[in-house]
Amino acid sequence: MKKLFPLVTADIALFTIQEGSLRVLLGKRANTPELGRWALPGGVLDPMSDSDLNDTARRVLSSKTGVDVPFLDQVATFSGAARDPRGWSLSVLYYALLPRDLVPAVAGSKTEAIEWRDAFAPGSGLAFDHAKLIAAALATLRDKVDRAALPLHLLPERFTLTELQQTCELILGRSLDKSVFRRRLKDEPRIVQLDGEFLYGPQRPAQLFRAAVDFRF
Amino acid sequence: MKKLFPLVTADIALFTIQEGSLRVLLGKRANTPELGRWALPGGVLDPMSDSDLNDTARRVLSSKTGVDVPFLDQVATFSGAARDPRGWSLSVLYYALLPRDLVPAVAGSKTEAIEWRDAFAPGSGLAFDHAKLIAAALATLRDKVDRAALPLHLLPERFTLTELQQTCELILGRSLDKSVFRRRLKDEPRIVQLDGEFLYGPQRPAQLFRAAVDFRF
Repeated sequence: MKKLFPLVTADIALFTIQEGSLRVLLGKRANTPELGRWALPGGVLDPMSDSDLNDTARRVLSSKTGVDVPFLDQVATFSGAARDPRGWSLSVLYYALLPRDLVPAVAGSKTEAIEWRDAFAPGSGLAFDHAKLIAAALATLRDKVDRAALPLHLLPERFTLTELQQTCELILGRSLDKSVFRRRLKDEPRIVQLDGEFLYGPQRPAQLFRAAVDFRF
Repeated sequence: MKKLFPLVTADIALFTIQEGSLRVLLGKRANTPELGRWALPGGVLDPMSDSDLNDTARRVLSSKTGVDVPFLDQVATFSGAARDPRGWSLSVLYYALLPRDLVPAVAGSKTEAIEWRDAFAPGSGLAFDHAKLIAAALATLRDKVDRAALPLHLLPERFTLTELQQTCELILGRSLDKSVFRRRLKDEPRIVQLDGEFLYGPQRPAQLFRAAVDFRF
């Protein structure tokens, strides 16, 4: 018999930059249904402990990956009788951004293998409707960056303008003109120049920046 | 005792143009909680009859207003333990657009008084967190039109370009330059010129248009 109450979950598309590509975190399911398939991290609402669904999302992500993400926001809600064999279900989808220097700290929970998949090609045979959910989260992220949002949450604490531009390009899937990009960042209040701090490498030293304390994505 | 399952509802911000302003439909609550307060039309998910939450939204709106809206889409999901005295609740908010010539057909259900309120100033003392929900739905609608979406669902079946521009202006809350607006509509595939059909009035006859059959908002 189908349940009379819907199953309410929060699912999270957690993005990061790794090895020059935009990645999304998937976990291998250790339980039925969809045992052994890859899925977005997610979990069931606990009305006794979660004050709202943002709480659910943060709790689930923290318990499944061991990290607390700095940024998390809603994408959309997916619902219906057909998307989960356990019955009528409703998933509030979030997207979250993880700075690249925190990626090594992410670990699956005891029962779960994890993988950082290419966000543009996360693989076939994913659990439930999660291929659709990943596409929706990616569209939201790209749309934000396309509208001049700066994906500062994906960068380490200190970064160069080249790293910032490359991060935007990886999300958008296209090159940006360097001089146009730099001009747009002039007098940009969301980034702060770190006077006297440079990244030293094979090329000439590059000025380092940090995100403004109260910047908005 | 608080319920262990969340109350899942769909609430709808139904917009139309009336008397030269953008309006949103409110109903006077005939039941507790919030008896007598004004609220967005909404209703509880019925997993036995709704195949997904879009179904819930359409069913609720049809039963509370007597009309089937041509356009309906999600805004966001609002949730938490504190927003409804009945316990943990989750509302998936939709926005919907009603052509102005269908406004006279809207009627409240037997127990409900309805009013078309100014969407920018819907009044104080609204039920639950519905003031916040209206603001969120309005922001989504404005954002769409700001990004060159044409609010054709708000217009009657046949309309002039002046009516289209006025509708955009009412949503955006600012004037648009007529020549820029007309230039943007040149070769616009979402509207179709009705050859030989004009609106006759005190000024010179105005060309009539209709929406393309498969246009997207």
